[in-house]
Amino acid sequence: MTVAAQPSNPLSEGVAFIDGHYVPLGEARIPITDRGFVRSDATYDVVHVWKGRFFRLDDYVDRFYASMAGLRMTLPCSREDLIEILHQCVRRSGLQDAYVQMTCTRGVPPRGSRDPRLCQNRLYVFAQPFVWIANDEQRRDGLSLIIATPERIPPESVDPRIKNFHWLDLTMGIFEAYDRDAVVAVLPDRDGNITEGAGFNLFAVKNGRLLTPDRGVFEGMTRRTVIELAAELQLPVEVRPIATSELRDADEIFLTSTAGGIMPVTVLDGRSLGDGRPGPQSRRLHDLYWQRHEEGWLATPVNYGA
Amino acid sequence: MTVAAQPSNPLSEGVAFIDGHYVPLGEARIPITDRGFVRSDATYDVVHVWKGRFFRLDDYVDRFYASMAGLRMTLPCSREDLIEILHQCVRRSGLQDAYVQMTCTRGVPPRGSRDPRLCQNRLYVFAQPFVWIANDEQRRDGLSLIIATPERIPPESVDPRIKNFHWLDLTMGIFEAYDRDAVVAVLPDRDGNITEGAGFNLFAVKNGRLLTPDRGVFEGMTRRTVIELAAELQLPVEVRPIATSELRDADEIFLTSTAGGIMPVTVLDGRSLGDGRPGPQSRRLHDLYWQRHEEGWLATPVNYGA
Repeated sequence: MTVAAQPSNPLSEGVAFIDGHYVPLGEARIPITDRGFVRSDATYDVVHVWKGRFFRLDDYVDRFYASMAGLRMTLPCSREDLIEILHQCVRRSGLQDAYVQMTCTRGVPPRGSRDPRLCQNRLYVFAQPFVWIANDEQRRDGLSLIIATPERIPPESVDPRIKNFHWLDLTMGIFEAYDRDAVVAVLPDRDGNITEGAGFNLFAVKNGRLLTPDRGVFEGMTRRTVIELAAELQLPVEVRPIATSELRDADEIFLTSTAGGIMPVTVLDGRSLGDGRPGPQSRRLHDLYWQRHEEGWLATPVNYGA
Repeated sequence: MTVAAQPSNPLSEGVAFIDGHYVPLGEARIPITDRGFVRSDATYDVVHVWKGRFFRLDDYVDRFYASMAGLRMTLPCSREDLIEILHQCVRRSGLQDAYVQMTCTRGVPPRGSRDPRLCQNRLYVFAQPFVWIANDEQRRDGLSLIIATPERIPPESVDPRIKNFHWLDLTMGIFEAYDRDAVVAVLPDRDGNITEGAGFNLFAVKNGRLLTPDRGVFEGMTRRTVIELAAELQLPVEVRPIATSELRDADEIFLTSTAGGIMPVTVLDGRSLGDGRPGPQSRRLHDLYWQRHEEGWLATPVNYGA
């Protein structure tokens, strides 16, 4: 029997909201003179949709507003409008599992001016198929991580709690990871403590306790979620500086990201961690994280319309 | 007598080269998914045109290539093509005095991939009317400068010799300058030495000697030009760490930038410098810089065609 192909939705590769219009993501373009590009003068946030439901939508939007306030930006629409646009991008894409990015840029300066105060801030939103930092095999078997050479841009220069695109240090870390037969990199700070990687936070497990850096990192939503789930599992959590030596001595390591949830690390700087398989605490937290998603915890159903 | 208005060139506000096409700058747009935007994974350079001539064109292009090599990027065209595109943007705009920016971005990743090695790097070029960091009055009377609070992103994180858009520290410095009734800001490094500002290098003059920072700064072309002109004027130059206290104690301060040349500072952190007027060495270097431009020193005439 031949089954007729479902007519595909041309928007299923992604939908963007630009200047008041919804367009296919592949056609979405921003002005080359927006300071969001030519000065990386922008902040953003990413919320995910799993099985048709936003996860922690209000928390992500709250954080986006805090980031904009930190950069003295004002959204050119209301919070209600923003939330409607997030829904619309997902609705028009038809995606059930999606990565939804909202970005506020400084905007295009008036002719001849360099004054950022004179720019009208701009909103760009897009939804695309769910992004995984690690593929299925990597999530099952564990990732190979390195401690890369570049230092993470310090809080004294750019406040890491304001989510930003200043990623050249992280990008050079990715190249170094590939050079060293690994797939992800975490960066140290100037004092030799661990910070974060390209789009993820890091946890170590030592003697049944979770450790995660307190400083010089973006305070990720999945990181926050893990801290909450750990309380439920009665796992103690220490949020404090983590020396690179302490990381090498960990029983388990895992990464957290909106793009993929909780991802075990099994190789650090080319050396197997423990028995080389994802550790028990990483697995418990991973399973509980996705179980909670199935249960609709902190979920907002996408308004898919009729 | 009424003189008929010269038909204006609609491209005189600027011309961009995007994806093989020349378009009015106001219409030029880049893909929202280019890592050059969403990860600030890009490098750029700016060459200026003065009275129909590029200044130090080969030097600027050499530096652009060095920056791309530093980020492991490859231009999707030849050096000859690039130079032709620079000429064409200016030619089509008809501008005699122009600011010409060339940018290489990592590009758009293949669907579902986060691997920067798989991106096809992209070239964007635009020419627009000459940009001045300081207006006529400010250049004549001197600028009000502050030493701002954020530390410049350190070389241990991002190599400052690779010209990049990681400017949030500089942008927050600009806001601080306005808050403190100044117009420009220079940032310190973690050791309390002076680095650079938003698009400019800094020189101090003390007892007839020029001082400029050696580390944690972009090695600007106007900075290099000043060092060369100082040799001609038999002014000694010290390229070394400059403590903020040394800056406060300077006889003169001036800024250098492709966007405006040599700009005197007469107020530092709200306090007048010397007699409150641009100093003699700043004026000599300023005048010689523009005299050399008039003479066609290191100049390449723009090919304006017929």
